[in-house]
Amino acid sequence: MPKRSAESLLTAAQGGDRAALARMLSLVERGGEPAREVGRCLGRAGAGDRAAKAGGGDEGAAYAVGLTGAPGSGKSTLTNALVRLLRSRDQQVAVLAVDPSSPYSGGAILGDRVRMGDHALDDGVFIRSMASRGHLGGLAVATPDAVRVLRAVGFDWVLVETVGVGQVEVEVAGQADTTVVVVNPGWGDAVQAAKAGLMEIADVFVVNKADRPGASETRRDLERMLDLSGDTAGWRPPVVAAVATTGDGIDDVWTAVEAHRAHLEAAGELRDRRRRRAADEITRVIAARLLEEARHLTASEEAAALGEEVADGRLDPWSAADHLLDRGVKNL
Amino acid sequence: MPKRSAESLLTAAQGGDRAALARMLSLVERGGEPAREVGRCLGRAGAGDRAAKAGGGDEGAAYAVGLTGAPGSGKSTLTNALVRLLRSRDQQVAVLAVDPSSPYSGGAILGDRVRMGDHALDDGVFIRSMASRGHLGGLAVATPDAVRVLRAVGFDWVLVETVGVGQVEVEVAGQADTTVVVVNPGWGDAVQAAKAGLMEIADVFVVNKADRPGASETRRDLERMLDLSGDTAGWRPPVVAAVATTGDGIDDVWTAVEAHRAHLEAAGELRDRRRRRAADEITRVIAARLLEEARHLTASEEAAALGEEVADGRLDPWSAADHLLDRGVKNL
Repeated sequence: MPKRSAESLLTAAQGGDRAALARMLSLVERGGEPAREVGRCLGRAGAGDRAAKAGGGDEGAAYAVGLTGAPGSGKSTLTNALVRLLRSRDQQVAVLAVDPSSPYSGGAILGDRVRMGDHALDDGVFIRSMASRGHLGGLAVATPDAVRVLRAVGFDWVLVETVGVGQVEVEVAGQADTTVVVVNPGWGDAVQAAKAGLMEIADVFVVNKADRPGASETRRDLERMLDLSGDTAGWRPPVVAAVATTGDGIDDVWTAVEAHRAHLEAAGELRDRRRRRAADEITRVIAARLLEEARHLTASEEAAALGEEVADGRLDPWSAADHLLDRGVKNL
Repeated sequence: MPKRSAESLLTAAQGGDRAALARMLSLVERGGEPAREVGRCLGRAGAGDRAAKAGGGDEGAAYAVGLTGAPGSGKSTLTNALVRLLRSRDQQVAVLAVDPSSPYSGGAILGDRVRMGDHALDDGVFIRSMASRGHLGGLAVATPDAVRVLRAVGFDWVLVETVGVGQVEVEVAGQADTTVVVVNPGWGDAVQAAKAGLMEIADVFVVNKADRPGASETRRDLERMLDLSGDTAGWRPPVVAAVATTGDGIDDVWTAVEAHRAHLEAAGELRDRRRRRAADEITRVIAARLLEEARHLTASEEAAALGEEVADGRLDPWSAADHLLDRGVKNL
């Protein structure tokens, strides 16, 4: 395949070429120089144009909604139901299905084509899985990068769905503009959600499978925990009941998401959020770059000798690292 | 709880105090200074003593066997069967169940007490889950650290079992002395294993659930892929059929593990492996330390301005990081 420039890919993707869009997302997933090239090209293309098009400051450009929750809580079904709702309102929607436990991406494992279902012939929907590709910035950098690409291509909404509630998933979901946490009736009395750090990132709670026993108890538990944790910046996460498989309550879920968006925009908080998220991304990229440098530090003979001591159990890796850092970091 | 020194914990753990051992593992899981304290104390306690006790160089000390494979391939059942076999030979065995997708550890999620099953009253078995604790070195540093603790406490074998085949799991399993890759009949014709990067880390293949249709085809596929990839350092991974639920083939699995161990020890390769693994750990710790430094870099006003450009899509995080690194890295 001849290498196409990021510019030509972007132009094609903006014209509706889905293969070009997929290729751009593969580049940001890879991180480093390929992602940098895409980023530079997005910068040149100008965020201002898109903001103007969307009307009303850059807050108007594609809005990212994160969906997270324990495996089996019905996130995919909920995501599909939301896609249907958005398409009925003629909104362009992209789904990023983030799976840090998989080395696959681009649809191999999550079966994007299967998931597309009734959206398969719909140009207004784009579904893509994102997986770990081994670079240190990882999905927590690649996913927001991918959101920016989708924003530049003109999607109104980007739904970021994670497979579980591990550290990476919570980080990725928490970087969205609005984060929806999905729980189930009886799912450990909502205590599990709290333990997994989901109370901190939730802007909206959905009690999915609410036709099962225990739904009202779970709602009550969540409300009590919210009583304890207090509001954040004037927003108390609403708790919405839904049955994603039948579509019951999906309207309410979306009303809650839109209410949160309106709150963020009115308070000027959306811009602050995106700024904080960007700062976090930059930190991660710096760390990734520094790791490359660290590999040089550990290529020395001194490092080999220390490695031997660690292998023998005479030294711990933390002290060995201290030693090499004391010596080497000034020469980075 | 009054804080106990790492020394007193180690002494207690070596005397059979399982609560003290669990506490030490929590410290290494946390990383940084707590892990450093444990490491220093292991170093002082002297790896030589334990090696002498085990008879014949440090290769004699506790041997780590990694078990990895797709979720549902039967790794836990296989691990339990191996524990039973080792106990019947009067070997002391520890199990580390590594779950990077979980924020829990110490048994909350994986149900260590349930898993203990018939080993619950057996002092010769210790089972512990390890989860992500948010520090950057992560499980790829914490797990080998934990293996060293278990080695110091006198276990003969440490079985390191992962939940899936994501990047972290593959890294963790690949750091063991011998890595067992578990596949199932019909599991994507073994091609999935190759895609997940398991061919590179496998020392032994187990076709588990071999009483199901397609087992011989899966074995044949693996053998063909091994024909293509060639031997590594004179070792061709054997492909062993087993049914972990009934115990069929478990002896063969263990014979293959012991054959690989004998090969590594005869070739002097075990020591080289452990050295390479230690160097990798040191690199990861250095990266973790550098990330702390990176957070300082991104605390500046200049960083805030760059963060704003990234948030607006005028700049990519990679270029912003380059800029801050050019400015700041000399002042680290």
